[in-house]
Amino acid sequence: MVSKCGKSSYILSTKPSILCEGAVVGRTEGEGPLKEYFDKIYYDSASSQESWEKSESLFQQQAFLEALEKGKLKPKDIEVMFSGDLLNQCISSSFGLLEFSVPYLGQYGACSTMAQTLLLSGLFVDSGIVSLAAAVTASHFCSAERQFRFPLEYGGQRTPTAQRTVTGGGCAIVGESTPGKPCISAVHIGSMVDLGIKDANNMGAAMAPAAAQTISSFLTDTETKPSDYDLILTGDLGEVGSKLLYELMLKDGIDISSRHKDCGLLIFDREVQDVHAGGSGCGCAASVLCAYILPKIASGELKNVIFAATGALMSPTSSQQGESIPGISHLVNLSFG
Amino acid sequence: MVSKCGKSSYILSTKPSILCEGAVVGRTEGEGPLKEYFDKIYYDSASSQESWEKSESLFQQQAFLEALEKGKLKPKDIEVMFSGDLLNQCISSSFGLLEFSVPYLGQYGACSTMAQTLLLSGLFVDSGIVSLAAAVTASHFCSAERQFRFPLEYGGQRTPTAQRTVTGGGCAIVGESTPGKPCISAVHIGSMVDLGIKDANNMGAAMAPAAAQTISSFLTDTETKPSDYDLILTGDLGEVGSKLLYELMLKDGIDISSRHKDCGLLIFDREVQDVHAGGSGCGCAASVLCAYILPKIASGELKNVIFAATGALMSPTSSQQGESIPGISHLVNLSFG
Repeated sequence: MVSKCGKSSYILSTKPSILCEGAVVGRTEGEGPLKEYFDKIYYDSASSQESWEKSESLFQQQAFLEALEKGKLKPKDIEVMFSGDLLNQCISSSFGLLEFSVPYLGQYGACSTMAQTLLLSGLFVDSGIVSLAAAVTASHFCSAERQFRFPLEYGGQRTPTAQRTVTGGGCAIVGESTPGKPCISAVHIGSMVDLGIKDANNMGAAMAPAAAQTISSFLTDTETKPSDYDLILTGDLGEVGSKLLYELMLKDGIDISSRHKDCGLLIFDREVQDVHAGGSGCGCAASVLCAYILPKIASGELKNVIFAATGALMSPTSSQQGESIPGISHLVNLSFG
Repeated sequence: MVSKCGKSSYILSTKPSILCEGAVVGRTEGEGPLKEYFDKIYYDSASSQESWEKSESLFQQQAFLEALEKGKLKPKDIEVMFSGDLLNQCISSSFGLLEFSVPYLGQYGACSTMAQTLLLSGLFVDSGIVSLAAAVTASHFCSAERQFRFPLEYGGQRTPTAQRTVTGGGCAIVGESTPGKPCISAVHIGSMVDLGIKDANNMGAAMAPAAAQTISSFLTDTETKPSDYDLILTGDLGEVGSKLLYELMLKDGIDISSRHKDCGLLIFDREVQDVHAGGSGCGCAASVLCAYILPKIASGELKNVIFAATGALMSPTSSQQGESIPGISHLVNLSFG
């Protein structure tokens, strides 16, 4: 039974559990600091597919299959699937997940997709609409570069504020409360925020205001403070966006710096790997959450976690037409079962 | 309280009502047979905006504002907004609805978006998650042609099976059961279907199998038959897709021809207007449902209606890579309050 709390936070009283999860990544991610945590690493940039888009679809599919396998589940057990991605018309979700014939609600939250799909899965299970829901997403460095920036063959220089789209996917399957599994205690549905950032090579700055608004609102709604959480995890603000997030929240008198980590900074070693301001993309938050964070909650190493992924709701067309970049951030509060 | 019924249908026991709705369209739609029903008609193809994309955003915004006005509501009364569109990264939704600062969950269901957003609004209200939810979508002939087919200036010939993307938007605001308002009795979450159609100029054929599967499953799940409904309304199958739908359903022994109408055939007069196989796009089902059908349910002229919108989950990239076109259809059962 969901109960609303404050402006846009919701307490999930049955505490639905994340029963199982899958995370698969590409080579650069598989050479980073989290390499031992992923279920599968593909070392070929197209993961033996004919195109990067098909490779991205494969990451959606494999993340879902890994999660099913761990949970000893079959596709037909899943009553509803929420999925989305960054590709035009979300084709990596549709083509990757088509064959499973699972009731499907396509989502568009850009890089906030893992939080958005997990939030919806939690609400559906807590309300008793379904017993099992899947949250799936993926992204791919090569398909994103081609679509949002330049063809890789062009060899364009990337700015220091640019982030590297993670090649990877993640899936979390949500079901009824189960001891020993990470549970979803609360969620917050974000609103769009636009502070006028227009630089498509600085997504962290465009998305930080949305993260600040969502985290602040959630703390206010639930009457909690940063020290009530072991970890406040953002999706892919990277180096630039994370610093801006601290600054913006400090203006509201909230200091999250000692609790905060960002998936885009966890997944790569910026000293060694050429990833500029850190990782980004739907697959960044998805693969880090599923591979690295959820097991730590399951083991009790982390007891109370805020997961706030952010998305930039722009397109190359809107940028070419001179529009700024609206951001959004959805939040899932995860707790030790 | 939502209760599951059969494989993927859900009965909404509190029967949430559609409290108010808005529908705005462009010139061609405003010259068609439904012209007297729309709230607003823009006669300039860009509706005084700088680009077609911004014009499409305006349709989202105006549909929402018309609905709010009829319901004597303010944006801050809406607890969650579900919206999506056909543009890359769903920018007509994000830029059109940004200013309202409403908690926002972006959807991608292609031309099934009106059914998908309405279905989610109904489930959220029936479960008690929120009291007021908005379902919004729009499409634009010129932005869709440029993005999916050819620049209009190229003057390409369209095939007889091609449909004309509707320039228009619709919004329905869902709240608690209210006598005299159309209510959502049940919904069905569709699964993707792909029978191998690859012709991007024949979307009706690509989407008909999904409509057939969804309508058949819903009838089976709810143990009802076509004659139990006054109207079985599809979103935008057009002339070609509607005929295919009858054929596919007849194979299952179900004849819907006497009950069926398609929004894509209602919105234009194909004898007089140069629209080939009929209307299409998110705005087609949205504007016809909101302007023409919902008032007929409110008045009791229609008592029990199946609204099954369909979407083609492809992109120009997937078509260029030789992929077929997966379809999906979501269903909302609307009843006289």
